Amino acid sequence: MPLDNPLFERIALVGIGLIGSSLARVIEREKIANAVVVSTRSEKTLKRAEELRLGTHYTIDAAEAVKDADLVIVSVPVGASGAVAAQIASSLKPGAIVTDVGSTKASVIRQMKPELPDNVHFIAGHPIAGTEYSGPDAGFASLFEGRWCILTPDQNTDPAALQKLSSFWSACGSDVETMDPAHHDQVLALVSHLPQLISYNIVGTASDFESVSEADVIKYSASGFRDFTRLAASDPTMWRDVCLHNKDAILEMLARFSEDLSSMRASIRRGDGDALFELFTKTRSIRRSIIEAGQDIDTPNFGRTPSKG
Amino acid sequence: MPLDNPLFERIALVGIGLIGSSLARVIEREKIANAVVVSTRSEKTLKRAEELRLGTHYTIDAAEAVKDADLVIVSVPVGASGAVAAQIASSLKPGAIVTDVGSTKASVIRQMKPELPDNVHFIAGHPIAGTEYSGPDAGFASLFEGRWCILTPDQNTDPAALQKLSSFWSACGSDVETMDPAHHDQVLALVSHLPQLISYNIVGTASDFESVSEADVIKYSASGFRDFTRLAASDPTMWRDVCLHNKDAILEMLARFSEDLSSMRASIRRGDGDALFELFTKTRSIRRSIIEAGQDIDTPNFGRTPSKG
Repeated sequence: MPLDNPLFERIALVGIGLIGSSLARVIEREKIANAVVVSTRSEKTLKRAEELRLGTHYTIDAAEAVKDADLVIVSVPVGASGAVAAQIASSLKPGAIVTDVGSTKASVIRQMKPELPDNVHFIAGHPIAGTEYSGPDAGFASLFEGRWCILTPDQNTDPAALQKLSSFWSACGSDVETMDPAHHDQVLALVSHLPQLISYNIVGTASDFESVSEADVIKYSASGFRDFTRLAASDPTMWRDVCLHNKDAILEMLARFSEDLSSMRASIRRGDGDALFELFTKTRSIRRSIIEAGQDIDTPNFGRTPSKG
Repeated sequence: MPLDNPLFERIALVGIGLIGSSLARVIEREKIANAVVVSTRSEKTLKRAEELRLGTHYTIDAAEAVKDADLVIVSVPVGASGAVAAQIASSLKPGAIVTDVGSTKASVIRQMKPELPDNVHFIAGHPIAGTEYSGPDAGFASLFEGRWCILTPDQNTDPAALQKLSSFWSACGSDVETMDPAHHDQVLALVSHLPQLISYNIVGTASDFESVSEADVIKYSASGFRDFTRLAASDPTMWRDVCLHNKDAILEMLARFSEDLSSMRASIRRGDGDALFELFTKTRSIRRSIIEAGQDIDTPNFGRTPSKG
């Protein structure tokens, strides 16, 4: 039975990984569209999406998927955005809204915008939500609840289209913020890409340190190390693309982090307890603010329950 | 009513923070001792411990606390170990077991051993368990469940005393491992001190970056940054002391981490996607091993439930 006045008649999801499949689930739960076309270039993934009943229609062909869609959401690694845009361009319905969910925005806009026809509304976006798991099984309807979604319109963006896309993200449970793409890339380089790369790096360092075995690293990981392994278990393709597509901002953050680390190393070498105490004290309050902002929980150890292996 | 055959008649807890107060709670729950003497140099903390009914006796005076105790557990920042040992030395009961819970072992042994009389059994130890919270209110009885406790006996350690201390930690829910103090300090520098310092450093970097406001850092922290803020909210005094007392091993780990980071930066600068993909792939499996070893949970985002601020 068709919905009574859905936000969109037909939504096309190009890419059905963690984000795409979470969108599919919340679109169904919130009755946001009458038809949801699921598309992915992997036959195996498409089959799995069908088994999970993530959409109403399924196709391997992205161009086919976007036909007649009022909203097209591209959820692929950012390095693939340009190719997807080229592929779907000539099949898009005039007046459709096209968006994405990629972790970098300037590069995605640079890749997609020139490919897309003038008669669609392209507004890039980025929901600040995720987990360390990937693929269509990893998604869940509440992923976006209480999380921010950043949209990066420009001066030519149609206000009605922007409003409609904002309503979509609100319906998914998100708060919506708009931002300049370059500023988005700077902010995310600091709060997301830097932590991600530092996690990969520390796990890399620990996993081939000669005098400490990997068995000991695993055994005693509850002393701190395990916290980093969550991010370091994230999708390698997605993160490779982020590094390649937000290179300058990431290199800036890594340079600053390294400078700060050199100064911490000097304090330790000198045995400067006061400098260390001051740094260790000032970092305490930011967690309190994050908890108050509803962006983390305050139960100890992230609320992990003790588990016996 | 006295317990039937408790493991120890009387236990003295010197220091009643997160670890000391967790021990107090599990000692009571598991009926490990008839009497538990709680001691801390802060009158306010001692009063709080009494309100929480953490022991059977309370005193500000550590020397008084250890009289007649069969087991003395020193749970203070590692920089204070020597002073505590000097203070309690002449009041210890002959044959008593004296241990600690500090995060560094060579330095603690160097500080405590020369102060203690020959007629007690000193065996240093380190339970690999904790949270980001401090103080007597932060403790809980299940803190040590499924976690490892490392003891660092030497060739003169009395096997019966070592056995008894191991039984104590088993009764608290821990698995016990023995290790050479220098190797302990090397392992922990990698799996605990390095992650801790990297967390402090990244939170420091983010909190005073000119072009990104602290408000944005907080708002978008669910994109990765928040994971680091947990460790960075830990007790500054404890961690200052760890840095000062495991300096060489920590500097070695930080140097290696920095080398690896330089090589990652070079890969990003060169746009070497293959090198990045390889690194990001190899770090994935270690998390799986940690989960299989029961040292972390496998639910996404550490099992945090979505929360709305």
